[in-house]
Amino acid sequence: MTVLEKFLSGDQAALARIITFIEDRQEKYREVLARLYPQSGRAVKIGFTGPPGAGKSSLVNSIARLLLARGHRIGIIAVDPTSPFTGGALLGDRIRMVDMPTDGSVYIRSMATRGSSGGLAAATGNVATALDAFGFDFILIETVGVGQVELDIVDTCDTVIVVLVPESGDAIQALKAGLMEIADIFAINKADRPGSENIVAELNMVLELKRNKIEWDLPVIATEAINNKNIDRLLEKIDAHLGYIKTSGLFEKHRREQIKNKLFGVMQFHFNNLIRQEIGRITDLDKVISDIYEGKSDPFTVGESLLKKISGIQPLH
Amino acid sequence: MTVLEKFLSGDQAALARIITFIEDRQEKYREVLARLYPQSGRAVKIGFTGPPGAGKSSLVNSIARLLLARGHRIGIIAVDPTSPFTGGALLGDRIRMVDMPTDGSVYIRSMATRGSSGGLAAATGNVATALDAFGFDFILIETVGVGQVELDIVDTCDTVIVVLVPESGDAIQALKAGLMEIADIFAINKADRPGSENIVAELNMVLELKRNKIEWDLPVIATEAINNKNIDRLLEKIDAHLGYIKTSGLFEKHRREQIKNKLFGVMQFHFNNLIRQEIGRITDLDKVISDIYEGKSDPFTVGESLLKKISGIQPLH
Repeated sequence: MTVLEKFLSGDQAALARIITFIEDRQEKYREVLARLYPQSGRAVKIGFTGPPGAGKSSLVNSIARLLLARGHRIGIIAVDPTSPFTGGALLGDRIRMVDMPTDGSVYIRSMATRGSSGGLAAATGNVATALDAFGFDFILIETVGVGQVELDIVDTCDTVIVVLVPESGDAIQALKAGLMEIADIFAINKADRPGSENIVAELNMVLELKRNKIEWDLPVIATEAINNKNIDRLLEKIDAHLGYIKTSGLFEKHRREQIKNKLFGVMQFHFNNLIRQEIGRITDLDKVISDIYEGKSDPFTVGESLLKKISGIQPLH
Repeated sequence: MTVLEKFLSGDQAALARIITFIEDRQEKYREVLARLYPQSGRAVKIGFTGPPGAGKSSLVNSIARLLLARGHRIGIIAVDPTSPFTGGALLGDRIRMVDMPTDGSVYIRSMATRGSSGGLAAATGNVATALDAFGFDFILIETVGVGQVELDIVDTCDTVIVVLVPESGDAIQALKAGLMEIADIFAINKADRPGSENIVAELNMVLELKRNKIEWDLPVIATEAINNKNIDRLLEKIDAHLGYIKTSGLFEKHRREQIKNKLFGVMQFHFNNLIRQEIGRITDLDKVISDIYEGKSDPFTVGESLLKKISGIQPLH
């Protein structure tokens, strides 16, 4: 049996090999993804994002347990966008799930790939596709919120939980910076700490304006993942959100949008390959660059004409 | 006189308007850049990156003063990649230069654009082109080091200074995560704090291996920007690095590489515009997406054939 056949027969070792294959972008990984993709689409994807130290891993852990108790199979992806100043240690509270069942009902994968944000978001989406095709019911994606990358990543999810802590401080600032658009549910974790009630009240106040415009009530739940407090309430809200997006048609609308973006990404990928290869073949590239270097020309004008020359594409104006 | 003519005659108000025009990507901003580009290329670009709170702004401030005293004109760009959890407040130590000369010898611009990393890096490069074309001798680019974005940004510089503090802790980790490749000079700022000698020694040890492979000695300077201590030594090292890259040919080599990357970026920009426009025109796009949504097809195969259909480009395998 090939690895792919083993994967399709439910072999978890084959799953691990396929994921590594996809993550490392080994030759023909896109053909493998093309094979897996039609098997995917059934799993529900739930994203968890928030600042380092908010206890996202514990929260994911607790939610996973409740889902397991319901008989679901869970795939977990922990994404760690590497910072040059922390060397990948941003995910300080890395998932510790030693006491998770080993019967194949849970599969955990850490991703700490460096590189362009687009690359990491695409890789995470591809790994989720593999887990989905493998047959997991829920895929929980955890990512440290430090920039644009994780906004892209959580955009691949059906339901997004933004995890904050009482110390997160100026929640309004956070909302301004784009969290409002991605959050479906807010969890104020470590709610036993001082300031918890303040941040919940403050968030609720800010969210009121948006709640009036949509049919979903954007809940704010105070949780204590470590003490297993209010995790059931958080899961209730996840259930409610999934119910809401499914009956309202938002689920399908969002997934169709994701497919459109994926098509866009596939085209970009091939275009980038093409120009990387073709630009090296241009016999007078050195001369072209010299002209720009010497101020006789500029990259904006030359780039347009190179595009036409390489691909036949006429730039739009 | 048009704004562009005023710009070319040295009007600083016109410079500000042109930069806003470029930053906001207003209509035809690329045509303006194409006009400015051939005037650029003379300015030396120096990048400063490091974790929040390392005193990068003070260091930039101090270096700017020394350069001004030499009679140079200085453009400063402070880039602040917005974090969704800090709402743009990462640059806590924002440049305070109220006592800078107002005779036009210094121009300071903050950029806090959100959005894709590629977009911010490109925008920074374009603003630097405008400052360069305007006639500044040195452009100092300061950026908070939190991810891939600022690595891209500092890659547009001729000389890169990585600023750390005694508390930066595991310097070896930082080097592993990609700083080694971009740093030409290390400044350990706030060197009056405990641990300064340790981090200098540790860095020097790690750098020894790389120093053996290159002709540049990768200096580590302990500075106190606030007390103006060792800033002259840092500037000496900047002078030395510029001298080294110019005599060794690395300066031209790097700038030619930057031009090649810019050409690549211009082509990508037009290609993205094209597919964004054309994908909407495909009459059966809904059907295409439905097929994928229903598992009858996959985005990898469909993306390739759409690429051919839209642009005539044949994907490479």
